[in-house]
Amino acid sequence: MSKKTTIYDIAEKLNITAATVSRALNGNPKISEATRQLVNDTAKEMNYEQNKLALALKSGKSFNVGVIVPRIDSNFFASVIRGVEDELYPQGYHVIICQTHDQKSVEIENINSLLNAQVDGILMSISNSGPEETRNFDQLLKKNVPLIFFDRKEKIPGVSSVTIDDFKGGYQATQHLINQGCKRIAHLSNNRKIEIFEKRYLGYKQAIIDNGLEFDESLVIETMSKVDEGRKSTKILLDMPEPPDAIFSSSDFVALGAIQEIKSRGINIPEEFCVVGFANEPFTRFMELSITSVDQSPVEMGRIAAQVFLEEVGNSKKIKSERQVVLTPELMIRKSSLKSSVLAK
Amino acid sequence: MSKKTTIYDIAEKLNITAATVSRALNGNPKISEATRQLVNDTAKEMNYEQNKLALALKSGKSFNVGVIVPRIDSNFFASVIRGVEDELYPQGYHVIICQTHDQKSVEIENINSLLNAQVDGILMSISNSGPEETRNFDQLLKKNVPLIFFDRKEKIPGVSSVTIDDFKGGYQATQHLINQGCKRIAHLSNNRKIEIFEKRYLGYKQAIIDNGLEFDESLVIETMSKVDEGRKSTKILLDMPEPPDAIFSSSDFVALGAIQEIKSRGINIPEEFCVVGFANEPFTRFMELSITSVDQSPVEMGRIAAQVFLEEVGNSKKIKSERQVVLTPELMIRKSSLKSSVLAK
Repeated sequence: MSKKTTIYDIAEKLNITAATVSRALNGNPKISEATRQLVNDTAKEMNYEQNKLALALKSGKSFNVGVIVPRIDSNFFASVIRGVEDELYPQGYHVIICQTHDQKSVEIENINSLLNAQVDGILMSISNSGPEETRNFDQLLKKNVPLIFFDRKEKIPGVSSVTIDDFKGGYQATQHLINQGCKRIAHLSNNRKIEIFEKRYLGYKQAIIDNGLEFDESLVIETMSKVDEGRKSTKILLDMPEPPDAIFSSSDFVALGAIQEIKSRGINIPEEFCVVGFANEPFTRFMELSITSVDQSPVEMGRIAAQVFLEEVGNSKKIKSERQVVLTPELMIRKSSLKSSVLAK
Repeated sequence: MSKKTTIYDIAEKLNITAATVSRALNGNPKISEATRQLVNDTAKEMNYEQNKLALALKSGKSFNVGVIVPRIDSNFFASVIRGVEDELYPQGYHVIICQTHDQKSVEIENINSLLNAQVDGILMSISNSGPEETRNFDQLLKKNVPLIFFDRKEKIPGVSSVTIDDFKGGYQATQHLINQGCKRIAHLSNNRKIEIFEKRYLGYKQAIIDNGLEFDESLVIETMSKVDEGRKSTKILLDMPEPPDAIFSSSDFVALGAIQEIKSRGINIPEEFCVVGFANEPFTRFMELSITSVDQSPVEMGRIAAQVFLEEVGNSKKIKSERQVVLTPELMIRKSSLKSSVLAK
């Protein structure tokens, strides 16, 4: 790496003081036009102009905003980021992205990397694995760098969030399966220490109770959001003495794994077994056997998270506002759970 | 935004000079242990320790590496990034990601954002639309910030790249279609000003010529890498007086759109019409009608690009090495192009 050109290098070359160089670069009216021109030309020649950073340090703004997500190769997170970009780009902000691979330790390092990169704010969806102790966002909050959660959040006083009504999403999905005549509905959840998964589970449970069906905790399995894991958990369910007749999964990837396992056993979907996923990943509609899923309006979620950031970055540090925006989910009914026998009724 | 704590604030609080604060923070032996301790404690109390940035400016290293990709929601690019992370993370580097949405203007702004964020290097795959003039990477190159291209590159002397043999990928895919008995093979290309698409096209063309088939330029359509665009281009092909009997697409998303259009006309895949994509996106194997595609070893590509970066960042600026690494593609044959009639032979 080359050493960066500093105002001292420019001062030395021109045989003037660093203070004069600094004033000239910052357009201080005390400096003559001729000197300003000379300093600017020399700075350019010595490749200094990149040091917008110094300016950023001064104004306290870099116009970079950091977004931290568990993974980028999920259409859901990519769409949220798209929404964030759509909203921030016209305001002159750029978005830089980090992924945690759902590791808390990486999440902490990502926050530090983004702070070192002098971002003006961080929008994030927390990861779901790692040590049990609570995350420490104090560092970040002390610096008054706005932090906004989307989708997966922690409850921190003063920190805004944009989420969907996950309870309702879980309830709707389960009610739909009950309407299809399913009696014994399993739930492939994820780490329920994460609020969104707990709420989807609670929505599922409530729908079962409200419809007078028996709630059986043994039909609930925590499963990482991966196709193979979905397959494994479905094996366990199908090998039970009293297997379920439907699965509501809190992940589309897990739902896909479930479908692969169910089909491999010659069980007919949806006539004998219904499956519903969550997140409305594009592959759910590309499949020949398209998958019913819960849409979370990710682009909208990203746009709103960005709007909340713009509000917060515009506030003086004395104003502490906290917004909790909750979007309404939408069930997208497709082949994996739509029985023609029910349709005919 | 709050004002950042500076060494001047610490100096004022302790009633010592900024130079002393700076020396103490940097462990200068001229400073007594008592003063060093006092400065460190005060810095911590005033929340200064985040200014690793100042240290980064001094050492010329931030341990952040920027990756610029056309889009993050493509498994190919996400997998390259995974490879980059796998390689750099153990070396203490963090990866921050920007996407261009295939817009050259955004690409330039991304480069500036990453330079402002003081990255130690940029790994990028160029975007394929925008003004025609050549990109200007001079700024970047002058700063001696290592630039490494992967997959989509420009030819710039001294700049390394990691690509796959796209000519071979195009040739293999087309040869496979010819082996299946296809006689009139169309090609859905992308912007052929981008080297990878030109090479896939040339590989396709050469395979046709080598097998003594007629090469028909009207069967080649440039198509943006989107499902809907693939559908549109396929409509054009199928409406020709002499429609093709196979499509080799330089994109899996376009191949998917092609399949949707072909099926919607009641044409049987693969018996009447074969389709091959490119990039081996996961959905190509998830589909009931799985899609033949060309695998590009993206994780490997990312790992190697990261290794090249580590070499370059370790070099003194006087050593200019340029590496052009070319990986071999692998054709993954699946249902969309495998005729049982041919299998039986």
